[in-house]
Amino acid sequence: MGDSWIGKRVPKRDAAAKTTGTIIYGHDLRRPGMLHGKILRSPFPFAKIIRINTERAAAVPGVKAILTGEDVPDTRIGLGRDNPILNRHVVRRVGDEVAAVAATSMDAALEAISLIDVTYEPLPAILDASEALKAEALLIHDTRTSNLHDKRSYVHGDPDAALLEADVVVEDTFLIPYVAPTPMEPSVVIAEFDADGELTVYTTNQAPYLMQYELGQAVEMPPGRIRIKQTAIGGAFGRGLDVYPFEAVAVLLAQATRQPVRIAYDRQEEFLAAPLRQPVKVTIKTGALKDGTLWVRDARALLDIGAYASLGTVIPVVMAQVVGSLYRVPHARYEADLVYTNNPVTGAMRGFGGPQATLFVEAQMDRLAVALGMDPLSFRLQNANRPDETTPQGLKISTCGLKECLEMVGSMRDKHKEPSPPGKRRGIGFAATLNVGGGARMHRSDGSGVIVKVDDFGQVTITTGSTEIGQGTDVVLSQIVAETLGVSISAVRFVNGDTGVAPWDVGAHASRTTFVAGNAALQAAEEARRQILETAAELLKVDTGELVMRDGSVYVRGRPELGLPLDKIMRARHFRKDGQIVQAQGWYDPPNEQVGSDMVGNLSATYSFGAQAIEVEVDTETGQVKVLRVRTANDVGRVINPMLVEGQLEGGIHMGLGYALSETLFVEGGQVQNNSFREYGIFTAFDMPPIEIQNLETHDPLGPFGAKGVGEIGVAPVAPAVLNAIYDAVGIRLNRIPARPEMVLDALETLQSNDRTSR
Amino acid sequence: MGDSWIGKRVPKRDAAAKTTGTIIYGHDLRRPGMLHGKILRSPFPFAKIIRINTERAAAVPGVKAILTGEDVPDTRIGLGRDNPILNRHVVRRVGDEVAAVAATSMDAALEAISLIDVTYEPLPAILDASEALKAEALLIHDTRTSNLHDKRSYVHGDPDAALLEADVVVEDTFLIPYVAPTPMEPSVVIAEFDADGELTVYTTNQAPYLMQYELGQAVEMPPGRIRIKQTAIGGAFGRGLDVYPFEAVAVLLAQATRQPVRIAYDRQEEFLAAPLRQPVKVTIKTGALKDGTLWVRDARALLDIGAYASLGTVIPVVMAQVVGSLYRVPHARYEADLVYTNNPVTGAMRGFGGPQATLFVEAQMDRLAVALGMDPLSFRLQNANRPDETTPQGLKISTCGLKECLEMVGSMRDKHKEPSPPGKRRGIGFAATLNVGGGARMHRSDGSGVIVKVDDFGQVTITTGSTEIGQGTDVVLSQIVAETLGVSISAVRFVNGDTGVAPWDVGAHASRTTFVAGNAALQAAEEARRQILETAAELLKVDTGELVMRDGSVYVRGRPELGLPLDKIMRARHFRKDGQIVQAQGWYDPPNEQVGSDMVGNLSATYSFGAQAIEVEVDTETGQVKVLRVRTANDVGRVINPMLVEGQLEGGIHMGLGYALSETLFVEGGQVQNNSFREYGIFTAFDMPPIEIQNLETHDPLGPFGAKGVGEIGVAPVAPAVLNAIYDAVGIRLNRIPARPEMVLDALETLQSNDRTSR
Repeated sequence: MGDSWIGKRVPKRDAAAKTTGTIIYGHDLRRPGMLHGKILRSPFPFAKIIRINTERAAAVPGVKAILTGEDVPDTRIGLGRDNPILNRHVVRRVGDEVAAVAATSMDAALEAISLIDVTYEPLPAILDASEALKAEALLIHDTRTSNLHDKRSYVHGDPDAALLEADVVVEDTFLIPYVAPTPMEPSVVIAEFDADGELTVYTTNQAPYLMQYELGQAVEMPPGRIRIKQTAIGGAFGRGLDVYPFEAVAVLLAQATRQPVRIAYDRQEEFLAAPLRQPVKVTIKTGALKDGTLWVRDARALLDIGAYASLGTVIPVVMAQVVGSLYRVPHARYEADLVYTNNPVTGAMRGFGGPQATLFVEAQMDRLAVALGMDPLSFRLQNANRPDETTPQGLKISTCGLKECLEMVGSMRDKHKEPSPPGKRRGIGFAATLNVGGGARMHRSDGSGVIVKVDDFGQVTITTGSTEIGQGTDVVLSQIVAETLGVSISAVRFVNGDTGVAPWDVGAHASRTTFVAGNAALQAAEEARRQILETAAELLKVDTGELVMRDGSVYVRGRPELGLPLDKIMRARHFRKDGQIVQAQGWYDPPNEQVGSDMVGNLSATYSFGAQAIEVEVDTETGQVKVLRVRTANDVGRVINPMLVEGQLEGGIHMGLGYALSETLFVEGGQVQNNSFREYGIFTAFDMPPIEIQNLETHDPLGPFGAKGVGEIGVAPVAPAVLNAIYDAVGIRLNRIPARPEMVLDALETLQSNDRTSR
Repeated sequence: MGDSWIGKRVPKRDAAAKTTGTIIYGHDLRRPGMLHGKILRSPFPFAKIIRINTERAAAVPGVKAILTGEDVPDTRIGLGRDNPILNRHVVRRVGDEVAAVAATSMDAALEAISLIDVTYEPLPAILDASEALKAEALLIHDTRTSNLHDKRSYVHGDPDAALLEADVVVEDTFLIPYVAPTPMEPSVVIAEFDADGELTVYTTNQAPYLMQYELGQAVEMPPGRIRIKQTAIGGAFGRGLDVYPFEAVAVLLAQATRQPVRIAYDRQEEFLAAPLRQPVKVTIKTGALKDGTLWVRDARALLDIGAYASLGTVIPVVMAQVVGSLYRVPHARYEADLVYTNNPVTGAMRGFGGPQATLFVEAQMDRLAVALGMDPLSFRLQNANRPDETTPQGLKISTCGLKECLEMVGSMRDKHKEPSPPGKRRGIGFAATLNVGGGARMHRSDGSGVIVKVDDFGQVTITTGSTEIGQGTDVVLSQIVAETLGVSISAVRFVNGDTGVAPWDVGAHASRTTFVAGNAALQAAEEARRQILETAAELLKVDTGELVMRDGSVYVRGRPELGLPLDKIMRARHFRKDGQIVQAQGWYDPPNEQVGSDMVGNLSATYSFGAQAIEVEVDTETGQVKVLRVRTANDVGRVINPMLVEGQLEGGIHMGLGYALSETLFVEGGQVQNNSFREYGIFTAFDMPPIEIQNLETHDPLGPFGAKGVGEIGVAPVAPAVLNAIYDAVGIRLNRIPARPEMVLDALETLQSNDRTSR
């Protein structure tokens, strides 16, 4: 096998279509006879619905259907199985779905929505997770006995004893707020029934095969009769991992009208109704022995999941892994209460709890080092995870370059000593991350199927169930197949996004696609290769073992003059007696485990590691924190496409910097108050610092060509590295993000007054 | 294996979409940013192009591109490799492509076309095949040395000696005219390049994988970079088997404008420019021994292929088979000159030469019987093909129910003796047909690939390269798969029409799809079945041999209480350690042969047979021939779907009746003069007689569930049966079709004057 496509900076297959604006995103798609759907949402965080009058709305010209809770199945949607499609008796959050309209124009739909009269009886809203747990609290879901959605706990070793044994213990309480995934393209769906009643859903959902099932349950139709077609997806970042009421509403409006129905959020509705990253209040103690051995972590978290659970139950699993397995720690405990409130719905977002947990774990690693009188970097190096070690939590770490990654980013200090300008102080902070790198068995299957066909002209088609959300599935799978078959990348066509045609895949999450779909593609390509070589060997009258595939041809090894172009081989194979075409299938389900209620188990077939060093400059007058540079080194196994690894890391770091410093969702009275990019504070291109990326290439024994997952690894270490850098610069310890100027100034003042007091 | 879906009257899968008008035919499709293409065509049958001025056309607002012969590759399109995309120096037929425009509206395109100034120098047109062969004739293609495109000849036995040996010989010359395939949907194409330069062609072409190659050759791009997507097809009947210049023009206009370009014929343009059924002038002698043994056939045909060859070279193969192998005939010869003229282009049309040859062969069978003093039906029975016999031509006939079919239709006579009304005379005529029933190796591969997947919900998807042109591929393959997997037809999804996704198939022709794609589907379904039973056997703790698949479940044979629904098995298989999904592939290329230049060989893996009896009533005053009833009996192997077999037969008979009696294309000066349905004379629903259909079900050893092909079998015997019935009614022998009243009256008058003379 040659080595020409692996490790190459190959552009995404859709790069030209995206840059020329010809690609069809979900929002671009129109279907013949399509109606516009619009949802009427609750303005109250908690209220009884007394009555709904749709008469005036129904009179609006162009209105084709109006649905209220009475008109739709009384099912519960989403992985939490608690979210009604349209609420009948009660609303539990601002934005809760109350009624829906389908009309021939968006104007008519909007007018009709504005004319639906809903009489509410407001209830006292529960906007704080601790309040929600009080005995006297109203029940947000009256089918339950409390507002505690779930309690998850993990433990290894004896944390209580260990905390007593430890020479040094630090304790902090962190408040980690909401952020919104803010993909460029807001939520959108088109539902369309064909004349036989088969439903096609055009969607930007990230897990189409799960969506089939979820939607089927919600609208009470056989999932097999639902065909999910993904359009090009303008970002998702986890927002598209679950199914939400608007998607079922579109289906039911389409069913009612027998016309395709589109529901497309604008940016305001996206901020209001799409799921957010879960906020956490956590109290954590970390202890070490005086020789610098990390000894114990003990974290107790309160998770405000909002009015509906969605992926709330799953996210603590990832948090527990960071607590239990990032660095070698002999004793660890993680306990989390997942609490219903009347706040916005939370869901999956890139990193899946990792950013929150890495923040509180890595902020404490720094504080513990200081308390030990150690250099934070040395302390990390001393306790770094090692290759070929199973953590007490059951994570089977095979390849692991964490130590090397820390050393690589540690060298940032060597060039640090530029003097700070007057009134400004500079500092460098570190943080590391452990991320699933070989899938993550969240569902019973973590598998992926791929079909590879090669045509008479040597053109190769990959048909895959895997999802492309901008991360580069298209080019990575193309590279893997091109490499295996020794053909040009342009000879490979990538087809995905249709559950009706492509084999199953669990969806784009957990940084899994390169590893899992990549292995399936490799398997299919190898089978295609076997078929091709079988024919080539006959034609060239040699053993298949003597053959190499390269440059679109098959050669006899060591005799480059003896070769046949692939298309010739294909036609010879096809156009002869008892001819055959080349078709091959691959299926890969990684050897990982679903974790049990004890949160123990090898969730991923392998793990990726990364470290970041971030230099900040703190303006002591204004409290403004400027990020001067970021260096990141990552062990993501063999790098299949450096450009995409860089893209994932840059994107993750961008997301992490917003999390650390600027993104602020003002949720007051249960309602998101700032619902535009102008007010939300995402990092712009102008805000971004230079980023240095280094790859520490291990060779994963199970990964395709040795690769591990990289999709989420850039996000998590950013915020703790920033907090640690702020400490390095000005000596303050922040327990909240984003580190906005006013908070930094407050902390600086407190520090100065403490200094004065202590002096 | 159960027996529930085979032999059932299951509606086509697209029946609801077609009857509700929601299906998207080629003419319905619009693409974003699409331009309208229009072709300027020659008004002359033969002329030099002196100059073309496009200046005025280019000034029309909305015009995006104008192409003339100078702007396009100087390649030759079509299976005859002789048809320029746009003609540079000479036009060879009325309708020849001279220039093309793409514009933002059809109005603009039409205006621009009208403003292109072409200066022609007319040449003396060659409108008769005999004239074309004369030494002094101008060369229609100046790269050739004569207007003889090709000479095909077939012989077995010693026809010259046999003609001397024969006790009775009849000789006739038949003139068989043009007819047009007239699908409801005229020709249409949309060509669209994506941002990477991959070309997608939306088409109603019947052979998408051949189109890929042909179009690639024509426009000089790698065929692998061309993706053919078939829309729903509103009929084709062979018109869509070759690639014609308008398709390449659309591609080149799309290339020039970087926008999708649509070219859609209206009915006029369809009559003018789409290929017609090949007209034939043939002189045939048929001889028999006095004991009623058919002894020899000797036919000499002149085929006017028009200005370009298209499928002209292939059609004589089918003609030769009728001459050489319909009935047992020890000596036979077929010679054909295929001649270029400046007449319209001819191409494939349902039956592929069979209707022409069956006309002259079966008309002579009748005449020979009369000359022998035998009953025409008894003469046929005596010489009918028999099972398990290889004809001298190499046709390996396995199953053959011709004798039984003739007997079945022969019984029409029993109910015949209703007295004719005054001035009208009734008669019954017979004819038989032999048709390929197990594919036909026209191309080096006659194969077909199918993918079957079964999802977690027990929903089955068939992905096939085969073409659905209304004939019922969708439901037949669904039945085969549903039967094999014991599921409901509604649990089967049918996906085809995309070369980018589906495996190769040679296209819809030669009545091959049920046999070839059906076998591939069967193979894939059997592999899926094997995978399912493997899991079910584990779950039920029995051997797979004890299991039956029925009603969407797997049962233990003889113990119906022990069963598992398919979806449960699928999920058990998928959602376990080392889980697997069900994906399977099938590929079938029948054991048939490409015939050589001697036209000998077993073209098809099996043969279908049919017989027709037609009763007519001839109005001796007006010459009007009314068809009172048609009875047809056919051996098409096992009948998978009686409704579709009936549909094919009724459609074929409809086509044959128009051929025999009414369809008249007036081609004068090389130009089709009547270019509307009103003037062309297709049989309407009101003209159609009652049709009785009987199936003589043989069980073909190679056919899927014993089936053989049926698509073309209805057409060929109609015209000779009608001619023979007219003779039976009024004693005239017509050597031309259609048997229009004026011709019948002429013949009646001639007959009467002969009678008077002889009296």
